[in-house]
Formats: sequence, C-alpha cells, structure tokens
Amino acid sequence: MSDKIPHWLQKQAELSPNRLAAETPEGRKLTFRQLHEAADNAAGRLVTLGITKGSRVAVLSPNSVDMIVLIHALSYIGATLILLNTRLTISEWTYQLQDSEADLLLAPAAYEQAARETGAAVCTMENLGQQAVSAYTRCTELSLDNVFSIIYTSGTTGNPKGVEHTYGNHWWSAIGSALNLGLSQHDKWLSPLPMFHVGGLSTIFKSAIYGMPLYVTKSFDEQTVQTAIMQHGVTIVSVVTVMLQRLLRLQERDGVTYPETFRCMLLGGGPAPLHLLQEAKTRAIPVFQSYGMTETASQIVTLSPEDSLRKLGSAGKALVPAQLRIKGTFGLAQPEEAGEIQVKGPMITNGYYRNADATASAFQDGWLATGDIGYTDREGYLYVLDRRKDLIISGGENVYPAEVENILSGHPSIQEAAVVGKADARWGMVPAAFLVKQQEVSIEELQAYCEQRLARYKIPKNWHWVEQLPRNASNKLMRYKLQELLKEDSGSCS
Amino acid sequence: MSDKIPHWLQKQAELSPNRLAAETPEGRKLTFRQLHEAADNAAGRLVTLGITKGSRVAVLSPNSVDMIVLIHALSYIGATLILLNTRLTISEWTYQLQDSEADLLLAPAAYEQAARETGAAVCTMENLGQQAVSAYTRCTELSLDNVFSIIYTSGTTGNPKGVEHTYGNHWWSAIGSALNLGLSQHDKWLSPLPMFHVGGLSTIFKSAIYGMPLYVTKSFDEQTVQTAIMQHGVTIVSVVTVMLQRLLRLQERDGVTYPETFRCMLLGGGPAPLHLLQEAKTRAIPVFQSYGMTETASQIVTLSPEDSLRKLGSAGKALVPAQLRIKGTFGLAQPEEAGEIQVKGPMITNGYYRNADATASAFQDGWLATGDIGYTDREGYLYVLDRRKDLIISGGENVYPAEVENILSGHPSIQEAAVVGKADARWGMVPAAFLVKQQEVSIEELQAYCEQRLARYKIPKNWHWVEQLPRNASNKLMRYKLQELLKEDSGSCS
Repeated sequence: MSDKIPHWLQKQAELSPNRLAAETPEGRKLTFRQLHEAADNAAGRLVTLGITKGSRVAVLSPNSVDMIVLIHALSYIGATLILLNTRLTISEWTYQLQDSEADLLLAPAAYEQAARETGAAVCTMENLGQQAVSAYTRCTELSLDNVFSIIYTSGTTGNPKGVEHTYGNHWWSAIGSALNLGLSQHDKWLSPLPMFHVGGLSTIFKSAIYGMPLYVTKSFDEQTVQTAIMQHGVTIVSVVTVMLQRLLRLQERDGVTYPETFRCMLLGGGPAPLHLLQEAKTRAIPVFQSYGMTETASQIVTLSPEDSLRKLGSAGKALVPAQLRIKGTFGLAQPEEAGEIQVKGPMITNGYYRNADATASAFQDGWLATGDIGYTDREGYLYVLDRRKDLIISGGENVYPAEVENILSGHPSIQEAAVVGKADARWGMVPAAFLVKQQEVSIEELQAYCEQRLARYKIPKNWHWVEQLPRNASNKLMRYKLQELLKEDSGSCS
Repeated sequence: MSDKIPHWLQKQAELSPNRLAAETPEGRKLTFRQLHEAADNAAGRLVTLGITKGSRVAVLSPNSVDMIVLIHALSYIGATLILLNTRLTISEWTYQLQDSEADLLLAPAAYEQAARETGAAVCTMENLGQQAVSAYTRCTELSLDNVFSIIYTSGTTGNPKGVEHTYGNHWWSAIGSALNLGLSQHDKWLSPLPMFHVGGLSTIFKSAIYGMPLYVTKSFDEQTVQTAIMQHGVTIVSVVTVMLQRLLRLQERDGVTYPETFRCMLLGGGPAPLHLLQEAKTRAIPVFQSYGMTETASQIVTLSPEDSLRKLGSAGKALVPAQLRIKGTFGLAQPEEAGEIQVKGPMITNGYYRNADATASAFQDGWLATGDIGYTDREGYLYVLDRRKDLIISGGENVYPAEVENILSGHPSIQEAAVVGKADARWGMVPAAFLVKQQEVSIEELQAYCEQRLARYKIPKNWHWVEQLPRNASNKLMRYKLQELLKEDSGSCS
C-alpha cells in the first residue's frame, strides 16, 4: 500500500475548481481553484523569506481565510506548522517557539508588537503579501507518515507538550468524521472554534478532503452563527456547550427555527447538561456530542442525536476507524466499572515533539492512555467521569491545575497553592485557588503576577487563604476536599 | 500512525447493531449484529475444519448472503480469501487453486461435483452449516498492510495472475468511493456484478465500513433491479453498459420513473455510447461512469453525471486519494497526447501472488502501468482509447486474446491463431478468431476443444480461415488489420 496521497487542496482544485472553498460574513468568497492559487502564491512568498521544505513556521492568528491560506501554503512547501494560541502570554508563546525550534512566526499586524517580544523572527501576514513570489517545488503528494503540525497542550505536570500530527492523523480524523456524520455535497461547515486548536484546525482539512466550503468567522458570535445558518446555507456547526447555550437563547429571543437542511451541531468540550439537550431536541437541532482531545486530532468518540437523551451524559462510541477501552486497576474494566479511558486509531498522534518521556508514558501497547476516567455501559456507550483528572475546562479552554499552581507557588509570598475547578454559569468552570501564605501579599498583587505569566482564562477567578492544604497519609493533595469546601462556602476573598 | 483499524464488521455490529446489513429479493434480512453473528459462527465452523489464521481458502459461488458471511468469516479467522470466477472451466479453477496454494474450496452444493474435479479439498456451504462451532480467537483488528484477498486476472501473456488486495486496499477503495459519491444513511446498494470480481466484492466492504445495507441478488435481472429501486429503497446500483441498456428498455416498457432518492448508477466496464447517456439523462438517471481494474480494487477514475454529456466518452478524473498520469514515449504526455494510463494510490494492489516478474513489470516508480492507452484533455479528464491493448470486454468479462490464442494454437491442426474483439449488439464485444491451419479441422471440433479449456465467454463467436496472419517487419501481429477485415467482411465461416 502506498502511504502517499495527492495533496488534498491541489486535488480538490483539480476535481472541483469552481466549487466554493471558503466564505466569510463580510462576503469574501474563494473557490477551490482560488484557494489553491492563493496558497501557492503564499508559498512562493514564504520561499522568498527563506522558508523551505523542513522549515518550522509558527502561526499566531485568530481565524481567517488568510490563516487557512497560510496553513495550506506551508504544506505546499513541506514545512511544519506550529500553531500558537492567541490567548496565551508572551512568555508562554516564547516557550513554545523555542521548544518547537520555530524558524519564523507569522501573525496579523495587530499581533506584531506582541509577537516581536517573543524574540522570534516575525513576519506579519500583511507584510508577507508584499513579498515577491519565488519559484519553488510544490509538494504534490502528502506522505501520510510525515508530521505536518504541532499544537501545544499543557501537560498535567504543567509543562506544555507539542502534540505532533501527521498528514495521516488529519486525514483519518476527517474520514472518521465523515463516516459518522455522512457526506453531502450541500454541506457547509462553520467552526467558531479557534483554528489553533485541533477542533477548528480539523475543519480546514475536512474542507479540502471533502470538497466542502467553510464559513469562516473570526470568533464565536451567536448572531453571526444564526445568520449563517438561516441565510448562508451553513449545515454543520462545531460548538462547545456555552456556545450552544447562547445560540438557543438567541433562537428563543428571535423566534427562529433552523431550516431542515441544518443537519449537525457538533458539540465538544464535555457533556452538555440535560436541559440544554432537551431544549435542542424541542427545537429539532441535531446535537452530536463528542469526546476527543488534541492527541486524537479532534473527536474520536461521538453520540448521535437519536441517543442523546436515551444515553444522557454519554459521549457515545468510538468512530469507525477507532477503538476504545477502559483500563481498570487490574486489567480491562468490566461494563459499568470505572477506569482510565484508552483509545487507539490511525488519527491519534505518534507522540510529543522532542519529548520521548511524555510520549512513552502516554501510550500503553499502542493505546493512548488519556488520563481521563470513565466507564462504558452494557451497550458500550462511554461515560466520562473526570475529563482528565483535575482538568478545568473554562469556556472550552483547558486549564491544568498544575500549571497554575506552579506559577502561584513560584511567588515569593506563597508557600503552597492548589487549584481546582469551580462551577460557573458563564464559563462552565473557572479556576479557584487555595493558598497557604509565606508572608503577607494581596490578591491584587497575585492577580497582576499571574497576568504576566498566564493566559487570562487560566487565572483563578476565586481565591481562598487556608492554614494548610488537605493531604492524605501519603501527602497527596485531596482535591475533592477543596471542591467540598467550594460547595460549602460560596464566599471567597476576591 | 497506527496501521490498524477495528474489524469493520464487528465495529458496525457495535455501532449499529440493529441497522440492516443485507436483504434479498426473497425477503431474507440480516442486521449488522446478525451478519456479525453469522460470520462469527461460520468462522467457528471453518476452524472445526482445520482452517486457522494464515490458511488459504477459495470461494466459488454466485452472489449470495451466505457468500458475504463466508468472506467476513475468513477475515475473522485471519485467513486469505481466494475468489474463483464461477464461469471458468475446471482446468482454469484447478490452475488458480494450485497457484494460490488453497487449503480448502468452499462452494454451494450445486457446484460440488465440478469443485471436486479440481482435486482440491472441498466443503459445500450447506455442509459447513452442519459443522460444530469451535472456539477461536477472532481478529478484532485489521492490519491495513495484510493481504486479505486474491482475485485472478488473465494476464496479457495469457497466464492468469493472482492480484493480492490488502485490507488497506479495500478500505481506501471504499473511502475513495464515498468521497466521490457522498455518504447518506438512507443508502442501499445493489450490485448485480459478481462478487468474485472486485467491483462486486468491494460493495461487501463498503457495506461494513459505511454501515450500509446491500440488496443481494444472485445475478443480473432487470426486473429484479427495477423492483428493488421502485419498491425496496435501493439508491445505488453498480452496472456495466449492457445492464444499463436493459434497465432503460424495461423502464420504457413499463413506463416507470425511478424515485428521486435513487442517486447513482455506477457504470463500469468501458465508456457508454452517447445514445444511452442521453436516454439516461432524459430519464433523470444519474450515471457515474468509471474506470478501474482488478488491480485498483474497483473504480479509481470517475465521471460525475453533470459531466457525462459535456465530456462524452471520458472516464473522468482520479478519485480524491488517487492520481493519474499519461506516460508518453518520451516522459509524461502533454494534454491531448496519447500514452499509457498510469495510476497511483493506496487502493492499488502491491502486486501479484508469487509472481515477482509480473509485479515488477506492472509498476514504474510506484505507479501502476495499466497497459491501457488514453489521454487527458486540457481540463484533466481521462479518455481511454484502448482498454488494455487488445483486451476484449464481453458482457463485462475480460477476454485476453493471448489466452484464447494459446489454447487455439495448442490444437494439433492449427498452425497459428489470432483473436480480436468484434462489436456485438448483445455483449458489447465478442472474441473473433483468425486461424491458419496445419491440417483440416472443423470449426465444430475447435469449439468443442475450447469448451474443455475455456470459459464460455472466452470462446470465439466468429471464425475466419486465413492464409497467413498480417505481421509487420519485426514479425509483430498487426491486430488492427484483422479488425479492418472484420469490418469489411461481415460474413464468417461460423
């Protein structure tokens, strides 16, 4: 079997040159031929800047058609793409740029100043457009085993790890999704999820592989999404719970019913609450719940709308090319028995960039040990109990307690810190901090300290001073005791 | 990237246990759970007969649900499947059974006597059902690189070659087809093409991979197909030209219009004549013309219905995971320039069983050299000029002149023989023989001689005595001269 396929964008430009590839609320439209030409041109300009096959190029950008063009341009050159989260701090970007050995950082002009503070070589996307177009040898084939992209995910130990995805990982993810959702030539996909996360990124490859237009919005705005569904033929939307909630509120306010052609609301980022699913059902919105992580190149387990109420709280079953198992303390778990969720399949990363230890500990006999706890019922439906042990999902972003704890306990006035998730009406969860002080310090000072070092969404929104942290006999932090405290005491010192 | 996927049938039985997997005109219906259980049972019975992982098992059967069950059963065991064409002679089967080193031959009772004459170990499908079910270790994963099936194709040299297909070849073929035709949960596929050919076989894997029901008919019958479309929800039908023709005639006779949900008539076996495509268009039948061969695990180039009249006679463009090029005498051909059609992609066989020479000569730099002659137009659409040089396609079956010539010239009274295709209203083409005699012999005797050695469709239907065969300076047979003779002289000696 050949492990090579034709380059997906060039292929689609050949098969369906005049089909729409991307459009925006502002009315910008590109066919596959135009997208191909734009990517080919951008590639020629990058080559002028010295980028060649094997170069490592970071992109720091909110969603845009130009970002899609750049991503395809890098694959035409055969360069590796490193995606930076726009919400991080300069020091976080700096770490990721250095760790990934990026040769160049591309960002829109609005990010130029911040980008330059990382010390990386920077070219703005606007400036790139002014470069001469050099001749280059376009990669007309993609080797499925070759790494194309790196996305950083905060490890449970607090050190971000660069998740490598091969072309094959992205391909299989797109195919697994198509086998689940079906494929129609009338599809148009809107993902308000950031393209620097794998969920948003995956729609770029789906578009090229399926020959399907993307409706590209800079970020999530419920009015824009509703208008796109009602007036611009969008049939599939990726969302996290808070977005679904806002869309339902807007629908209610406007007395609007989505057209029958709207066929999928793909919900990631943890199970949705019952009332939301019931409301979606009343409104005839087909919600596909899903479970996945950066390592699985987007969703790997999904629940169909037919099952969403019958299997309330379940994430569903593994996609056609994927497998799921629950590892108990002694071997594989029985149905209804909780254990670690492990997954396997050709969409799963081979490992972390330059981090053999993390890679080795992430896999067991070819299975990805997710660290998440869950069980399957007697019909094989997955229920996730703890979306990674201790992970806080705030507005769709992952906050790893250990990372925030590391920062806090690095402050000279703090002796010890513990961070847990606190339920929040707007964000789902927010980080809450429990601190043991070394000497007097104000919450304001700690907040300012964090602002220098942590993305906004990672900064605790809720602060508690304690005499000591609850630990068990073996000195392990008992986080559930802190969560009990949060429930008991709704007050806090901020 | 893991090169393993869960076993497609077991997976579908888990994902959609109650979805219909197969039904017949006689009213037999199996869900995916039932198909899985039937295959699992059949596997246990085969194990009782001594079949294990790595065994080589031939199947000689017309299309049936039981044949589908057996094919999945062999993959559950991890055995290799060898498919025999029911239309061949005992000596042809014997050759293929010996060449493929088959351990067992499975066939319905109706074929038992003929099967036994091959000297192979035979078990009838009916008898298999009486065996005890042994415990065995089911293959729950499929390794994409492992060979699953062998289908013999007559080589141009006259020696049949066993085309090996890996699980990956079949998987990629199914995915390439889905990306071309789309995927709907309302699909139901009817393939009257024999499952011992790759076109029919491929629908078995598509069914399991897509979770799609097959409507299984023993062979082609236009009334059965029309009823299946009109009354049993069939949405896709695989056909060759002669079948499409008969379906159109029946439609006309019955004054029937296919429902709008009927979405694809997948046409293989050479381009269709204009009047047929025009008639299909008038009747709003979406015809997808296609080009492929055993080596490509079913179609690899297709033409969409929108293009069928605009690009009359074209086979279309290569599927998303595939590539196409035309090799001229000096490097790659320009548009409109004829040359050898070469294709590449992960659905293409790695080669022929125990035939390194044929394998080596079939590939050039990773491209399959089809031996077919064609060109692409300026928009990249493929036109096939000679579907393999000299190949005769008769009623959808390939007849290789060299194979028939070898038999004829083996007769003691024949000095030299040449076989070419002759246009035929019913079969598209039939073989025509040109013979130089050594001594007197009757056509009747030659026909009887062929009947012992060749499948019925390979036997010449048209006979000519000549003084000598037309040869060029380097003594190469000039077949086109014979074809000119056929056109000039409509008479023949039979």
